[in-house]
Amino acid sequence: MVICAEEVEKARHRFAGRIHRTPVITCESIDKVAGCKVFMKCEHLQKTGSFKARGALNAVQKMKDEGPVKGVVRYLLLHCLYREETCARLAKELNYQVVEPFNNPDVICGQGTIGAEIVEQVPDADAVFLAVGGGGMASGITAYIAEVRPDIKVYLVEPEGKELTAYLTNGEITPERDVVDTVADGIRVLKVGEYCYPILKKSCTDKVITVSDDEIRAALKLIWTRTKQRVEPSAAVPLAGLLKVSPSELGVKKAVLLLCGGNVDLDFVP
Amino acid sequence: MVICAEEVEKARHRFAGRIHRTPVITCESIDKVAGCKVFMKCEHLQKTGSFKARGALNAVQKMKDEGPVKGVVRYLLLHCLYREETCARLAKELNYQVVEPFNNPDVICGQGTIGAEIVEQVPDADAVFLAVGGGGMASGITAYIAEVRPDIKVYLVEPEGKELTAYLTNGEITPERDVVDTVADGIRVLKVGEYCYPILKKSCTDKVITVSDDEIRAALKLIWTRTKQRVEPSAAVPLAGLLKVSPSELGVKKAVLLLCGGNVDLDFVP
Repeated sequence: MVICAEEVEKARHRFAGRIHRTPVITCESIDKVAGCKVFMKCEHLQKTGSFKARGALNAVQKMKDEGPVKGVVRYLLLHCLYREETCARLAKELNYQVVEPFNNPDVICGQGTIGAEIVEQVPDADAVFLAVGGGGMASGITAYIAEVRPDIKVYLVEPEGKELTAYLTNGEITPERDVVDTVADGIRVLKVGEYCYPILKKSCTDKVITVSDDEIRAALKLIWTRTKQRVEPSAAVPLAGLLKVSPSELGVKKAVLLLCGGNVDLDFVP
Repeated sequence: MVICAEEVEKARHRFAGRIHRTPVITCESIDKVAGCKVFMKCEHLQKTGSFKARGALNAVQKMKDEGPVKGVVRYLLLHCLYREETCARLAKELNYQVVEPFNNPDVICGQGTIGAEIVEQVPDADAVFLAVGGGGMASGITAYIAEVRPDIKVYLVEPEGKELTAYLTNGEITPERDVVDTVADGIRVLKVGEYCYPILKKSCTDKVITVSDDEIRAALKLIWTRTKQRVEPSAAVPLAGLLKVSPSELGVKKAVLLLCGGNVDLDFVP
């Protein structure tokens, strides 16, 4: 399957009525701090509290449309050793199917529907800022926008230690570990999926912004206090990236930030 | 000045374009827990993060419309001893005017604009649940709804220790203190203002619900985790009240809850 705007539109059609078209909010005080107009796409208000519902539902619904499905195994806890082997074994034993969390074309196209909504909701946007972990959401949105609205730049914001620019340039990961140590626990996975890699390499290699935990916490505090939206730390990563660069130098006047999720412990303090 | 729907409409006109018409949100999982349809009016998204901007702006703008105003003194910290005397003295020294925080007809009519929006945004509501502190917001909304839509019941939700039913019935306050000890610090003031009293006595004496701190915290956790809205504890008081009663026994099918504010310390944990 090709990851393209047509498949993204099919995903939208497939899960219509069961996935929220999430709102876009603005906040004057954040505009002032950022130095440009900021549009926040509220995926923390998506079903399940995260954009992940889009990809998962698209993949599962497509399986069901193609034939009977007994059950689905999604990847277990991130730190489960041998999780790929475990899922594969369980799937075989139970006669279930496996859906990978980010490295699956149907999941990627499901997440790409965010891009389709962004270009409708903020048609005069000139840049989109996304947090990047495994890359499923980032590549789905990037693929759609690069095809439909190539004038909109997509910036990837990564936590320190991910070293995404080097990875996208050389295809090699230097750090010998699976995860990045970051407060943004939703994007701890180090490696970008193999379906995601070529999309991000093509469109975003020169548009990676690296932020520290302190910068993520500062952005999170701004969002919590100014917008009153209780998003998770990963959702503050795009704002941390925007605050690190100079929008005017980049030629950015209207930036869309993805607030990717709102699943945060009740006792978490930024 | 009479507190009535006409004055509320004048307030709306007076501050048009400078006060947000705040959105109303819904959440299926809260509907299920509550046992009725729940509509949450998002005053935490109001300018300044609270409904109080409405009353303050109405009062100040009306003063300015009536003649030159050198400055305005609002009541200082709640615990400032002799605050009434202090404000009066400052106002005299500076040739400023005083705006009381809840016991001022212009403030009350400003808060009443929330009622006007509620009946437009949720025209088939059958009940409104409000937290009550000094009573300015509660009486403004109640006065408007009692006049324009008397079929909608207004319930007042109070923290334990306020003893509002006895006060509305007898006009006497038993507890010898100024504040209620509650986690909902936005509604700590014990006494209801004298302009507010007759309005609330007339419409709400038999519609007071008392909730404990534990019930407020439980409601706050629900709002934080389910709606992702980072409201303050006082804003959870109406939901705590709704969860304490049986909507079906009260004949309530569609309840509006006022999320009154979102000004909460970053390190507050419910």
